[in-house]
Amino acid sequence: MAFLDRIAACNNADMDAYVPLHAFGRRIGWVRRDRVDRLAAHDDVFVPAASGEGLALAPGLADTAAATAAVDRVLRALAEAGEITAWRGERYRVAERFGGPELLAVERAGASYLGIRSWGVHMNGYVRRPDGGLDLWIAERAHDKPTYPGELDNMVAGGQPAGLGVMENLVKECAEEAAIPPDLAAHARPVGTIAYRHALPAGLKPDEMFCYDLELPAAFEPHAADGEVHRFMRLPAEEVLALVRDTARFKFNCALCLIDFFVRHGLIGPDDEPDYAEICAGLRRNG
Amino acid sequence: MAFLDRIAACNNADMDAYVPLHAFGRRIGWVRRDRVDRLAAHDDVFVPAASGEGLALAPGLADTAAATAAVDRVLRALAEAGEITAWRGERYRVAERFGGPELLAVERAGASYLGIRSWGVHMNGYVRRPDGGLDLWIAERAHDKPTYPGELDNMVAGGQPAGLGVMENLVKECAEEAAIPPDLAAHARPVGTIAYRHALPAGLKPDEMFCYDLELPAAFEPHAADGEVHRFMRLPAEEVLALVRDTARFKFNCALCLIDFFVRHGLIGPDDEPDYAEICAGLRRNG
Repeated sequence: MAFLDRIAACNNADMDAYVPLHAFGRRIGWVRRDRVDRLAAHDDVFVPAASGEGLALAPGLADTAAATAAVDRVLRALAEAGEITAWRGERYRVAERFGGPELLAVERAGASYLGIRSWGVHMNGYVRRPDGGLDLWIAERAHDKPTYPGELDNMVAGGQPAGLGVMENLVKECAEEAAIPPDLAAHARPVGTIAYRHALPAGLKPDEMFCYDLELPAAFEPHAADGEVHRFMRLPAEEVLALVRDTARFKFNCALCLIDFFVRHGLIGPDDEPDYAEICAGLRRNG
Repeated sequence: MAFLDRIAACNNADMDAYVPLHAFGRRIGWVRRDRVDRLAAHDDVFVPAASGEGLALAPGLADTAAATAAVDRVLRALAEAGEITAWRGERYRVAERFGGPELLAVERAGASYLGIRSWGVHMNGYVRRPDGGLDLWIAERAHDKPTYPGELDNMVAGGQPAGLGVMENLVKECAEEAAIPPDLAAHARPVGTIAYRHALPAGLKPDEMFCYDLELPAAFEPHAADGEVHRFMRLPAEEVLALVRDTARFKFNCALCLIDFFVRHGLIGPDDEPDYAEICAGLRRNG
């Protein structure tokens, strides 16, 4: 087991199995080849792309509102047919890039079916030890969570909803997930991104996560505030490093966010890690 | 002018203009299409690749020593013909990846002609200000340096020679370039990589740099020790950020190493920089 195995587990998609999905002249997603016909059957919504490769929204869908309503109709039909499960009633903003304009919005449960990128925040909370080393606060996910129950997680993580600043969202998640007061969470700082293309039975997650670090006072104790977390553990960074490298106990993308932490804090380096350059490049594949 | 302009300036190569160069079944470089015939004229050294795309070392070159000698012969002929200039008498280790075995060695002046990756170290030296902000030590390159004279540079940077550890090399460069004593330089920590594919008249540089941070005491003053540096300047990080973003005063790859510093230290973030995700991903293109 090695750090590169964690990166490979995140980037497990065979991209030859997908075709691009376009909207308003921009690529917004990836559809599995074996699902293209099912979408194209709704030919008032999905049509062959003008380039000949993949699908595009029908040209009659002239604006964001029309595109959103039409795609929603198809996703609801797929949900009724049992092809999309766990309808949330929560919409993801669809854009070519994070800073780009919203092209349409799609139901969260259907995002992977269409291979639409989502964005989120992941925060590593750490404590500087008297010996100069670092401890990391690690979450163990609730055992009754529908996704990745019982797996290890970053201290705080969550999806990025439309209409909220990234830091604003992080402060909210800090309070909800770990009872970190806003005035403490405000010291978190952005430290980069991780990106990957992850294949799931539901489809593709070509996601990008904003990573944050928060240095915490030694006396601070988080506690699970909303039932998402089973428990928090404070572990020496060296121990977390071994857990990430040698086991698959961490949720797939949380492992990447931790590897990024180890890289940035000099806990691994090019003299002691033969895969160092590939690890660094692998953290932002397909970003 | 924007951070993405700096990333684009590093990644200025049109890769359609190059074909891969293989050795011992591995891709080791990129040759410009208009130079393929010149190399293939030496058909005891360069032959069409078995895959049909690009060039490969002739199968008769059975080992590292034979490959090194044969390629050196061709590079010397090109140098005599004036196609390669500034012969150094210094050899680069050629490998598919940094941690991989040495496949052959090539004269430094010919590395770009063959599009061979080189590795190096770049270190940002910084001082924590009483107000909590950071100052950065910036080098101005000597005005009589053959490459990039007078451009701004990271505090310490240099190529990675074979047979030396990366940290060992950094400590040596710290002493030679900035008169940083080894016991101080030993506190530098690895913080990641930057990677790019940079086209030059000489050819292609598909390089990867190991980045280091060194926090320095406020009282420390570097001085130019070997004539490579015209002067050192200590500037507020905010001022360096504006110089990198708004001007082309920094040597192309040093700008990337500084952008990586700004990202890791939270000096730019996803709420204030609309290109944030693209900047993060762009720092390790083609790594």
